[in-house]
Amino acid sequence: MSRPILPEDQVDRAGENPGSILLVVLDGLGGLPHPETGRTELESAKTPNLDALAARASLGMLDPVGPGITPGSGPGHLSLFGYDPTEYVIGRGALSALGVGVDLKQGDVAARLNLATFDAEGRVTDRRAGRPSDAEGRRVVDLLNAELSFAEGIEVVLHHEKEHRVVLKITAEGLDEQVTDTDPLITGVSDLPCEATGPGSERTASIVRDFLDQSRRILADEPALNGFLARGFARFRTIPTMEERFGLRGVAVAKYPMYRGVAKMVGMEVEGVPSDTGSTPEVLKEVWGRYDLYFVHFKDTDTAGHDGDFEEKVAAIQEIDALFPAFMELDPDVLIVTGDHSTPTLLKEHSWHAVPTLIASKTARPSASSFGEATCRGGDLGRIHGTELIPRALAHAGRLVKYGA
Amino acid sequence: MSRPILPEDQVDRAGENPGSILLVVLDGLGGLPHPETGRTELESAKTPNLDALAARASLGMLDPVGPGITPGSGPGHLSLFGYDPTEYVIGRGALSALGVGVDLKQGDVAARLNLATFDAEGRVTDRRAGRPSDAEGRRVVDLLNAELSFAEGIEVVLHHEKEHRVVLKITAEGLDEQVTDTDPLITGVSDLPCEATGPGSERTASIVRDFLDQSRRILADEPALNGFLARGFARFRTIPTMEERFGLRGVAVAKYPMYRGVAKMVGMEVEGVPSDTGSTPEVLKEVWGRYDLYFVHFKDTDTAGHDGDFEEKVAAIQEIDALFPAFMELDPDVLIVTGDHSTPTLLKEHSWHAVPTLIASKTARPSASSFGEATCRGGDLGRIHGTELIPRALAHAGRLVKYGA
Repeated sequence: MSRPILPEDQVDRAGENPGSILLVVLDGLGGLPHPETGRTELESAKTPNLDALAARASLGMLDPVGPGITPGSGPGHLSLFGYDPTEYVIGRGALSALGVGVDLKQGDVAARLNLATFDAEGRVTDRRAGRPSDAEGRRVVDLLNAELSFAEGIEVVLHHEKEHRVVLKITAEGLDEQVTDTDPLITGVSDLPCEATGPGSERTASIVRDFLDQSRRILADEPALNGFLARGFARFRTIPTMEERFGLRGVAVAKYPMYRGVAKMVGMEVEGVPSDTGSTPEVLKEVWGRYDLYFVHFKDTDTAGHDGDFEEKVAAIQEIDALFPAFMELDPDVLIVTGDHSTPTLLKEHSWHAVPTLIASKTARPSASSFGEATCRGGDLGRIHGTELIPRALAHAGRLVKYGA
Repeated sequence: MSRPILPEDQVDRAGENPGSILLVVLDGLGGLPHPETGRTELESAKTPNLDALAARASLGMLDPVGPGITPGSGPGHLSLFGYDPTEYVIGRGALSALGVGVDLKQGDVAARLNLATFDAEGRVTDRRAGRPSDAEGRRVVDLLNAELSFAEGIEVVLHHEKEHRVVLKITAEGLDEQVTDTDPLITGVSDLPCEATGPGSERTASIVRDFLDQSRRILADEPALNGFLARGFARFRTIPTMEERFGLRGVAVAKYPMYRGVAKMVGMEVEGVPSDTGSTPEVLKEVWGRYDLYFVHFKDTDTAGHDGDFEEKVAAIQEIDALFPAFMELDPDVLIVTGDHSTPTLLKEHSWHAVPTLIASKTARPSASSFGEATCRGGDLGRIHGTELIPRALAHAGRLVKYGA
């Protein structure tokens, strides 16, 4: 899509009383029909609050990335935030780093590391080092951060994420992400060498190899946590923020690092983690009134989809539905409910299927009084690309000027 | 949009008996549901003729410019004519000039002028010079056209539009539109100087300042109409005509200058002004058979929308509906009914909402027997961008060749 999602200068930055936008993402919301009832998970769930919202909303179906494309969580969310993920390509390493709060700067390279177990011959015997405790993982990471040593101008920092998962950040001049993963994906063989695959990436590959060698030496006496497997190298590029592009100062209320990471990447603040500081509606209420865009993320729908448990996903949707009266009390001018992709329990994984979507506002064109795939298919939004969501949200919030005379 | 709306060489320029296309635009047609009935203006109107037409038409919803974008009348119409308005950007001054029949050539600069009243200290006391009669306005414009004098190679011509409104046309080498408006938008202050804002626009700014100074001197003894405020400078670029692009020789039957202007810009002829020479069906009948594309414009639907009067808009739609039997008598091969944008009475202004659209022809796929937002949402056309209308019209008119073997 090379037509820009908004012509230039459309955002009304001087507007009086611009509307607030609450974007509620139910991860993996879309589903497939139950073989017996013919109804999807969302259509099977009892959702009185979402149904009431649908009755005053424009409904539609949303393709996060493109026809037939199954999105990962990063691209799925980028699209919902108005960033075409085929244009803003962001590596998993960078997303993970942002997610755990690593302060990435333009040009840094990040990667995902597994703490792994190697035998005396250098063969991988456990790709997750026996899933160490967080404390064990952190101990090794702290040790390495103290002992690792590089040439002038090269900084390598490790951040412990969870159990065996660690994020690597390299800061230096002239880094590049075109280097190969070292994870062989099987055990009983050596890890793969990190090799340059692009013209300017030899320096990066050499730093990575140096880092991996040093780590093995420093951890040589460790019984299980004695080396790393690296993958998902990504050079961090700063991208224009949602405030720059859309005039939206955003905040994310999300429990999981990944989603906080994508939100940060587009310039949102991240305030409070629901699990630590209260329920999602409580955290949202805390920050309400200080931003233009409120992004709320729920994970349980996707988890149930991955589990392949139809009833679990129905239950997850119902639990989230019960939170909507608390959202409504905040009186957002525009309330969007959608997903970053479908995760049908029938497939037990993400899928390419379009995602049911509602935009509730005073200027909506309602067409049905229930929220589900079938009603959304016939709605006024029609079938939209993920990146078309934010322009519509801006319009409903009174945040765009007229195009031409 | 960089994918062209038609692959090259699709237009069948040698076809026998190509079909006629009647494009009826109800300005601001789309609406929002009445809070009590849940039906839009179009859905509330009694439209037996449009409903009968819908029953043999493909129905759909049309986004004139893009998701969330509220179009002005110029961009909205360009899009319906098959010109992406984000690609063909046309200034208001050029549209106004075309609308009043000014013969613009490539490179000319046009602007909109207000006759205004200035006090002895040069402060604006009335931005519309007391809304003079057309005769008064014309008198002053004629005087200036006789008295103004410029250097060799510079031609400045004024065209009286209506009351205080005048169009300025400058013809000279090396003109540019990047100059500032002089209208301060408030009274009690001086007008603003016309300043160059682009690298090549100093010459234009200097001609404009010279013109404004001369006008003030020539009109010094006028009590009220003693100067101009200028805005909307636009350099005229010729664009490929509809005949060049689509093989369509078009004609516009439109009452208001603006719409005749856009039609001229894409190469249509303008024959007859309904208010002067008869009713719209009469004017249309007069020219029928001499063109490929007949563009008919109705303004009352938009006016009622701006007035915020739901019943007025319903009545306007019903009055236009009553004209359709006369249109049907002409037996167009393809009859399109749509709008250049929505103007919901609820909002009292243009909006981004998609516009209900029908294409009636022998090759349509009908889906409903009434014309309204709800039926169009479920129609065979689906959700289309404005520029997709003409390719479909051409197809229904048998004016396209097969693509590939």
